[in-house]
Amino acid sequence: MHPARFITLEGIDGAGKSSHLEFIRQWLQARDISAVFTREPGGTPLGEALRGLLLSVETEASLDTETLLMFAARQEHLDRVIRPALAAGQWVVSDRFTDATFAYQGGGRGVPDSRIAVLEQWVQQGLQPDLTLLFDVAPDVAAARMATHRTLDRFEREQAAFHARVRDAYLARATAPRFAVIDSGRDFDAIRADIASRLQRLVEQA
Amino acid sequence: MHPARFITLEGIDGAGKSSHLEFIRQWLQARDISAVFTREPGGTPLGEALRGLLLSVETEASLDTETLLMFAARQEHLDRVIRPALAAGQWVVSDRFTDATFAYQGGGRGVPDSRIAVLEQWVQQGLQPDLTLLFDVAPDVAAARMATHRTLDRFEREQAAFHARVRDAYLARATAPRFAVIDSGRDFDAIRADIASRLQRLVEQA
Repeated sequence: MHPARFITLEGIDGAGKSSHLEFIRQWLQARDISAVFTREPGGTPLGEALRGLLLSVETEASLDTETLLMFAARQEHLDRVIRPALAAGQWVVSDRFTDATFAYQGGGRGVPDSRIAVLEQWVQQGLQPDLTLLFDVAPDVAAARMATHRTLDRFEREQAAFHARVRDAYLARATAPRFAVIDSGRDFDAIRADIASRLQRLVEQA
Repeated sequence: MHPARFITLEGIDGAGKSSHLEFIRQWLQARDISAVFTREPGGTPLGEALRGLLLSVETEASLDTETLLMFAARQEHLDRVIRPALAAGQWVVSDRFTDATFAYQGGGRGVPDSRIAVLEQWVQQGLQPDLTLLFDVAPDVAAARMATHRTLDRFEREQAAFHARVRDAYLARATAPRFAVIDSGRDFDAIRADIASRLQRLVEQA
């Protein structure tokens, strides 16, 4: 039996995270590793309600309020989904987590890192992902990918300069050892080989 | 012209705060003091939405999540209502503020004061009320008052021991100089004379 691990997927909108979730699911399943797949914002009924509030074009919460709501949803996500799963020995794979707040509300919109770090500590109390897969791609490539297949929400409609700041903020965080930066501009096979090798390492650390 | 002041009203449910709001309104009006009357949780459209979420019997947010949502609503209240009014020279009278979180989520439900204080500092960044009127009454008197006239919400349905803890938490905070403890077991005239004298002192400090 593999001890429970907490994996997060990060990257700017259009970096291709979601495309690789199914691959990760199959990889874990093939090794009989029981895993919970979840996402932020959202992941719980309350979180989904707050996600709706945050993504709706009508809502004009102040930036500080938005940041607190993100962490309220995250608290619920930790209390109801992530911690119980880890305690039960299940792996947890979350599509976005706190690095996204540092990247979007911090790098993108200017909330100081020090203020985000206070809430990170309040909510996580030391818990961090064991592995963070950061899907990295140039913002213009990401924008081209996104525009083809769906209606853009408020965050996605923000302009190129914004996405460049978000990407830089992600990369600045990626110096922590838990990060694996995945060059998402390559073909799927190369990316998946990368992901598989990181997952394999996580299993072997166990 | 009187420099803007920030007044909060606190006390357990049924302590009689709301009955005295109209008196305060008239007292300020008689002195040509322009004031904004507001309340927590609520005070903004987003805050009202969160208030509904928090008071609904169906919602079962974890205690930490509830505390973060309270502060998200408070952040919005500060950014959209309280700070702009004070900046424009208006007085602000809020039916409840952060002391209520220390009393209800802290004393009543067990969130450590130190954790609440971190969020207080995050959201208020040093801003505190100039005067806090704490309406104090024995919990059994308060419960008897409330039961007569309306449907009880989730917080109100909590039992007597809870209200006793909330009251104790309020009284423990009242050592700060900004507090005026109003013995709410007396008749209205005595209470109003008390309130008037506190307001007069605030005007004279100006």
